[in-house]
Amino acid sequence: MGVSVVSLLMAWIFTREVLGADTGTAAMQSIALAIKQGAEAFMKRQYKTIYTFSVILAVAIFAFYYSTKGGPLAWKMVISFFAGAVCSGLAGFSGMFVSIRANLRAASAARTSLNRAMQLALRGGAVTGLSVVALSLLGVGIIFLAFGGMDDPLHVPYEIVGFGFGASFVALFAQLGGGIYTKAADVGADLVGKVEAGIPEDDPRNPAVIADLVGDNVGDCAGRGADLFESTAAENIGAMILGVALFKQFGLLGIFFPLVARAFGLLASIVGIWSVKLKNEDEDPMAALNRGYMITSVLAIGGFYVAIRFLLQNNLWFFSAGIIGVITSFLFVWITQYYTEYRYRPVQSIANASVTGSATNIITGLAVGMECTALPVIVISAAILSSYYCGQYALPNIGHSAAGLFGTAIATMGMLATAAYIVAMDTFGPITDNAGGIIEMSGAPEEVRRRTDRLDSVGNTTKALTKGYAIGSAALAAFLLFSAYLDQITELVRAKLAANPNLLTNLGLTSADQYFFTHVDISKPQVFIAALIGAALVFLFSAFAIKAVGKAAYSVIEEVRRQFRENPGIMAGTSKPDYGQCVDIVTKGALKAMVVPGLLAVAVPVAVGFIFRYFATPEDMTIGAEAVAAVLMVGTIGGILMATFMNNGGGAWDNAKKFIETGQLGGKKSEAHKAAVVGDTVGDPFKDTAGPSLHVLIKLLCTVAFVMAPLFL
Amino acid sequence: MGVSVVSLLMAWIFTREVLGADTGTAAMQSIALAIKQGAEAFMKRQYKTIYTFSVILAVAIFAFYYSTKGGPLAWKMVISFFAGAVCSGLAGFSGMFVSIRANLRAASAARTSLNRAMQLALRGGAVTGLSVVALSLLGVGIIFLAFGGMDDPLHVPYEIVGFGFGASFVALFAQLGGGIYTKAADVGADLVGKVEAGIPEDDPRNPAVIADLVGDNVGDCAGRGADLFESTAAENIGAMILGVALFKQFGLLGIFFPLVARAFGLLASIVGIWSVKLKNEDEDPMAALNRGYMITSVLAIGGFYVAIRFLLQNNLWFFSAGIIGVITSFLFVWITQYYTEYRYRPVQSIANASVTGSATNIITGLAVGMECTALPVIVISAAILSSYYCGQYALPNIGHSAAGLFGTAIATMGMLATAAYIVAMDTFGPITDNAGGIIEMSGAPEEVRRRTDRLDSVGNTTKALTKGYAIGSAALAAFLLFSAYLDQITELVRAKLAANPNLLTNLGLTSADQYFFTHVDISKPQVFIAALIGAALVFLFSAFAIKAVGKAAYSVIEEVRRQFRENPGIMAGTSKPDYGQCVDIVTKGALKAMVVPGLLAVAVPVAVGFIFRYFATPEDMTIGAEAVAAVLMVGTIGGILMATFMNNGGGAWDNAKKFIETGQLGGKKSEAHKAAVVGDTVGDPFKDTAGPSLHVLIKLLCTVAFVMAPLFL
Repeated sequence: MGVSVVSLLMAWIFTREVLGADTGTAAMQSIALAIKQGAEAFMKRQYKTIYTFSVILAVAIFAFYYSTKGGPLAWKMVISFFAGAVCSGLAGFSGMFVSIRANLRAASAARTSLNRAMQLALRGGAVTGLSVVALSLLGVGIIFLAFGGMDDPLHVPYEIVGFGFGASFVALFAQLGGGIYTKAADVGADLVGKVEAGIPEDDPRNPAVIADLVGDNVGDCAGRGADLFESTAAENIGAMILGVALFKQFGLLGIFFPLVARAFGLLASIVGIWSVKLKNEDEDPMAALNRGYMITSVLAIGGFYVAIRFLLQNNLWFFSAGIIGVITSFLFVWITQYYTEYRYRPVQSIANASVTGSATNIITGLAVGMECTALPVIVISAAILSSYYCGQYALPNIGHSAAGLFGTAIATMGMLATAAYIVAMDTFGPITDNAGGIIEMSGAPEEVRRRTDRLDSVGNTTKALTKGYAIGSAALAAFLLFSAYLDQITELVRAKLAANPNLLTNLGLTSADQYFFTHVDISKPQVFIAALIGAALVFLFSAFAIKAVGKAAYSVIEEVRRQFRENPGIMAGTSKPDYGQCVDIVTKGALKAMVVPGLLAVAVPVAVGFIFRYFATPEDMTIGAEAVAAVLMVGTIGGILMATFMNNGGGAWDNAKKFIETGQLGGKKSEAHKAAVVGDTVGDPFKDTAGPSLHVLIKLLCTVAFVMAPLFL
Repeated sequence: MGVSVVSLLMAWIFTREVLGADTGTAAMQSIALAIKQGAEAFMKRQYKTIYTFSVILAVAIFAFYYSTKGGPLAWKMVISFFAGAVCSGLAGFSGMFVSIRANLRAASAARTSLNRAMQLALRGGAVTGLSVVALSLLGVGIIFLAFGGMDDPLHVPYEIVGFGFGASFVALFAQLGGGIYTKAADVGADLVGKVEAGIPEDDPRNPAVIADLVGDNVGDCAGRGADLFESTAAENIGAMILGVALFKQFGLLGIFFPLVARAFGLLASIVGIWSVKLKNEDEDPMAALNRGYMITSVLAIGGFYVAIRFLLQNNLWFFSAGIIGVITSFLFVWITQYYTEYRYRPVQSIANASVTGSATNIITGLAVGMECTALPVIVISAAILSSYYCGQYALPNIGHSAAGLFGTAIATMGMLATAAYIVAMDTFGPITDNAGGIIEMSGAPEEVRRRTDRLDSVGNTTKALTKGYAIGSAALAAFLLFSAYLDQITELVRAKLAANPNLLTNLGLTSADQYFFTHVDISKPQVFIAALIGAALVFLFSAFAIKAVGKAAYSVIEEVRRQFRENPGIMAGTSKPDYGQCVDIVTKGALKAMVVPGLLAVAVPVAVGFIFRYFATPEDMTIGAEAVAAVLMVGTIGGILMATFMNNGGGAWDNAKKFIETGQLGGKKSEAHKAAVVGDTVGDPFKDTAGPSLHVLIKLLCTVAFVMAPLFL
């Protein structure tokens, strides 16, 4: 907890440093102001919508728990739900607050020094990274203490899952809304601006250009921030629940371990961020960022060792599990690079296919996207299995699967140890993108543009890598949440059996404590069907997310056309377009469009559990809960694959275009380039809307199932 | 069996009728001859490749079984494997033999009568339909008798799974090879012909035009024929194995029931095909085909009733399960129509999106494809569950899940009862497509072209509907094969336990007969990972299938460009292009490209079982088999969704283009049309290569796992 406070303090220091920096010329300031106003207006309305839903949901949860489990638990559920929702929002907001200011400062610094501009952008991003991780740690810690966790450590971890549900609920809408916003603005601005009117990107005559720049902030910064907030919160809670199962072995220390390990990760990230510096003005900024990542990783491993030495009886098998997690995060980042950077075969194959037109570009991109799911699956499989066996070797005398799962939990912690640094790198992306836009629109000299272009292209890389990291950590976090859900069902059924001892005979048991809910048996027709529905949910959710972008983009296109038509002075450069109107229209469109997919994600697992409980028989009383488990697990499998397909496919299309723009295969304005632009546009809603939203979806499925579990029995 | 012979006789009569029809002008004959030669050359080489693999695989199976289970079973496995492989090839070949001759006769008849042309095309297709279903019935029946099924009905059904494996092995390569061929030729011909050279479709100056027409036969006719051959064979065998579980209730009759029900379905289809006739020359041919489908369905239901009355003790719950199957096939056909015909919203939304360019066309098409998975999933879920409960109500006193699964089996029979008619409708597609091509290339008068165009467009619809039907029936058949696999593992483990009685104590059993392998528990990390791998296999397989088309198409493009370049007389119309060279190149390309995805499908389940068996512990000795079960089940889930996405997405893109070609949104040659052509091209490998291959993949996974099951323990 102390470390959380230190981290927030650190975030505040970074904020002060960023805000104290030079703010450039008046022209730059006026553009940055427009971005700031647009982003703030969107955030304000978005959170209003989200919190309205949250209140409705909270009332429903309260009523449901009040009627089935009594008042005290109902209050705890609602309080932890709100705490999660508020902390998630706060983390997103504070990150946004800085990044929509850091863009201008980074742009201004770029006029004199690449190093200074990079540092400002990274430290601006660090505010998001540190608040995300620190708030999730602080939130879970405070709730744990407030609910009397020190006195009743075996039950309180179950009561704080509401925190994870609140966080994932807000995260889903934040990522969906932000993702729809950013791509609707981007696609809309490009289609009318570049294609119809023939003006370049970021041209100030395009009425949608500010909305486009706003989008980078609300999508990448606030959206991914909320996503990783949820991953770390889910991992904290899931690991604490697994610590409960090992209480006999480690006592309270096992339950606290996740929080301590996280704290060390935070400290490592602070040092890592602090250390990033270019050796000279010509060095590749990516190299400096990678150095910082290495430093963070090494320190995090050291911190891990200390935590395991003092909290987990110096058990080196658990330490190995932590190392596995760190290696997994490295491999995910590396695989993502291979599939999305134009130095490698996949992106080049897409670029080559562009020569024969947009159809072959699309076909090849889709094939690359589908192909690239294989390696991450192998890595995640190896990580889960090896860390599971590490856990079993660590505590060979513990029955059940608790020890193995705790090993997996530690690997997840290892993967998430560097989360704050990774989020900082991610937010670096929109800040440098915005800085580039500000420089471009304010007509700065060529040399400055080259500097921001270099930062921008590094930002594109870091954004892509973060997505690979985010899906990997989401998969591991979801795996923890599965077992938390199974444990929760065990608890609920035991309570039921204790209340109705005559049910015991049906199950062939003599006491409620003998009961374990461990089977999710997809050879039962009901469970198989639920699994099928879980996978179909991923397809349907993706379809809705993609369609939402199309719908919102269409309204932007109409608005830009209207402005060009009614005010010919815009194209002539004599009068300023009405940026605000465009921002307003995307905001409304994105918020409207996020509702259906968001509610779908909540409704499906609840509906499956509620309907399938009616298939229960005295011998098989948990079929409803088992069906929901199948929805979660196979939904997660589908989500991991689909998200990887979409993220990497989209990234590969993007970079195939960039590859051609470097002058290859005919360069800009060639037929190949036109074809590559089509691929890039198709990839946009993949990689920035549907894909990242799926990361959140798989965690939301687990937390909603956990909270609504009593309904399924 | 008698009915099979009658059906084959009937197929021979249809063949005689078709071959006896008028063969048109010399110009038409020379085109048809080129198609015939190309198709025969491809089939010959393709089967040579496939049977080479088959022999290698058979040797491996023999060696494996000989060393683990002894000589007699090894011989039986290899014989049934070859019988399946040969029957599948024979069904494909006889169908092709007629359809590459029926195209010319239908074209010739179209010069005078739409009705006669339609009848000839359908009866040509009927040869495929009847031989497919009759040969699968005859093959399974003969093997059953030859292996002494009458004396040992409880074990022989397990020994004929090799038949299903042989059939699915050939089917996978037939569908993959044919699918790659047809789309490589199509994409290649279009890209150079229409786009680069600016000549219309089916123009005789295009050197790839004959390859394109050949492709329709080898892809749609031979490929889908092999696919549905495998579905019916799998269903026959799977249902017979379930009949074994109910031996105490029904005796031999329960094991024979699937064959008898299938025989009635065949008779119903013969009558249905015979009855199809236009009321007058202006009637929509689709209406006549639908009448035939209705007649077939009604007769099949009647036949079902008779079979249940005499074989299954007149149990009306089982009859209800059969009705559920028939309704399911109707719903699948209807949903496919909704998502792929341009009368409805989905296709129109793609057409509208084409106005803003190819990027929005693609995005909308992808969204429609993903969305359209939801309804089929609901239908298949309802069908499985309701027929399962029908089975349980039918025999309330039978424990285990045998009765429920037998209900599902009967629903599958209901769905497949009309298979022969459906395959006839499907093969109608390539025959009419070819007839149109022959008419077009031979320069027939406008009026005749209009007739063949009408038939061609009906053929497009029937092809799309068959795919919906094929995936639905593949899903149900796979569900049967799951339980066959689980039963097989039960048998193998019992044999092991009987041999090592000291293993019994680990499992807490007192005799081997108490053992049941029923759990596929995805909450175990090993099984979860296997499930993840199963789903990833679907993505990887699709990627390879799509890339294979691209590769093969590229070789066609090069060849066509070469011919245009080296022989300018082709474009001038003064000299004939070298069609044979193009046919040859696609043949080589397609056969080479089908190897990797085909072997992948066989290798993955075997590798998972072989590796995961090493995670076995004394308490959990079946973890390898359980992991393979997860690969099958979650691979099937992924396959159903991905195939539906690809089939319907591709069909929707195709018809969005056709909708614009009717003059909507600017009509042919508008910008919207150009965008729609891009979507159509992207959809081609989806709907004709990867999608249909996935139907076969999910069945192959089950049969390969079944045959290799001893390896996993």
